[in-house]
Amino acid sequence: MNPLRALSTTERTTLHRLRERGTTDRSALYDVLNAGLICHLGVIIDGSPVVLPTGYGRIGDILYLHGSSANRSIQFAEDQDICVTVTLLDGLVCARSVFNNSMNYRSAVIFGTARLVTDPAERLAAIEAITEHLIPGRWENSRKPTKKELAATSVIALSLDEASVKIRSGGAKDDDEDYELGYWAGVLPITQTIGAAEPDPLLREDVAMPEHIAALEGREVGERAPLPDSD
Amino acid sequence: MNPLRALSTTERTTLHRLRERGTTDRSALYDVLNAGLICHLGVIIDGSPVVLPTGYGRIGDILYLHGSSANRSIQFAEDQDICVTVTLLDGLVCARSVFNNSMNYRSAVIFGTARLVTDPAERLAAIEAITEHLIPGRWENSRKPTKKELAATSVIALSLDEASVKIRSGGAKDDDEDYELGYWAGVLPITQTIGAAEPDPLLREDVAMPEHIAALEGREVGERAPLPDSD
Repeated sequence: MNPLRALSTTERTTLHRLRERGTTDRSALYDVLNAGLICHLGVIIDGSPVVLPTGYGRIGDILYLHGSSANRSIQFAEDQDICVTVTLLDGLVCARSVFNNSMNYRSAVIFGTARLVTDPAERLAAIEAITEHLIPGRWENSRKPTKKELAATSVIALSLDEASVKIRSGGAKDDDEDYELGYWAGVLPITQTIGAAEPDPLLREDVAMPEHIAALEGREVGERAPLPDSD
Repeated sequence: MNPLRALSTTERTTLHRLRERGTTDRSALYDVLNAGLICHLGVIIDGSPVVLPTGYGRIGDILYLHGSSANRSIQFAEDQDICVTVTLLDGLVCARSVFNNSMNYRSAVIFGTARLVTDPAERLAAIEAITEHLIPGRWENSRKPTKKELAATSVIALSLDEASVKIRSGGAKDDDEDYELGYWAGVLPITQTIGAAEPDPLLREDVAMPEHIAALEGREVGERAPLPDSD
């Protein structure tokens, strides 16, 4: 395995504030992307920014998003600058002062030009990656897309070259003189958990819960089986 | 109480797809905003969209965001079109076909021109609303901001006029012919929960855990005490 390339440090990925929370470590980016479930896609439509939540998948150093062919934000993304942000909220940080209240989080902000994926094999691999990212094992346990369904789906690719990762963890950081104050300080951790599976009422009677579903029950979202990593 | 004004239906808030998931009900917008913890702010910087996670607060029909005065996305937002999106992920929907896999979610997408808040009273009320939104009760249980801290904070306001709310709930919706297939279908619910408070190791010995913190332990994020609603 080659060492992972560092992320670029362009003007827009250079942190202007709180630099100690930043990293240009590519594995940190992959960790955030593996742990997250959804991203927020930013695209400019008619001169205004539009931010929409959507799923994603990663194959090596390419991020894939998909949507209906009628999806405006995917349509408008083609060959345009886009921004994709994945945020994991880990805790509410209560400081003694309002000003130092904070949040623990991991976030990845990725910039680049969206490429419309037209090669059939790459499109299918991308849709598989997006499906597997949300629910590992789902691809092999579902009916595969038909030609008609594939035609109704647009896929865009974004190279993971220009990105910044920010992580805030740990406790409250108060001003020196505030430690004397009688206000409570500490952290309220936040976890996002997958609950017990709710089988479809119309499920065929002979269909038992498959292993890949049972494996997710009770898991933290960020700890579902990671993507097979092609690096 | 007056009936709430409906949300506008401009071109960019009109759902072009899956209209049955949309609503122009203002109370639905407030429900999503009350339940969410963070938003994703989209702003155009140097011609590119930039999407960053941040906290928010609401007073009546105005949404407030804040950031360090050195925060580029808050700086660049002033008098510009911005987009603020709040997304709550409620479940992974497993259909019998890859194509019909889906997610249960509630999302609000708000458009408008950001107004830099300069009035001192409005600024302070906004910072209180943002603080209280994350941790109800925190404002009265923290040291209030100093003039210097206030000067280091920028606040922007966004009118809640042009917004769309989308909600997807319930089970898998498969194509008629797929119900015969032997694939499992159902929903994996997702919850975001606040865990046991972790007191700061440097906490003054005589400071007990306050009620507003104890009240959050074990709660779902969306079920923390709602904002006092000024409508």
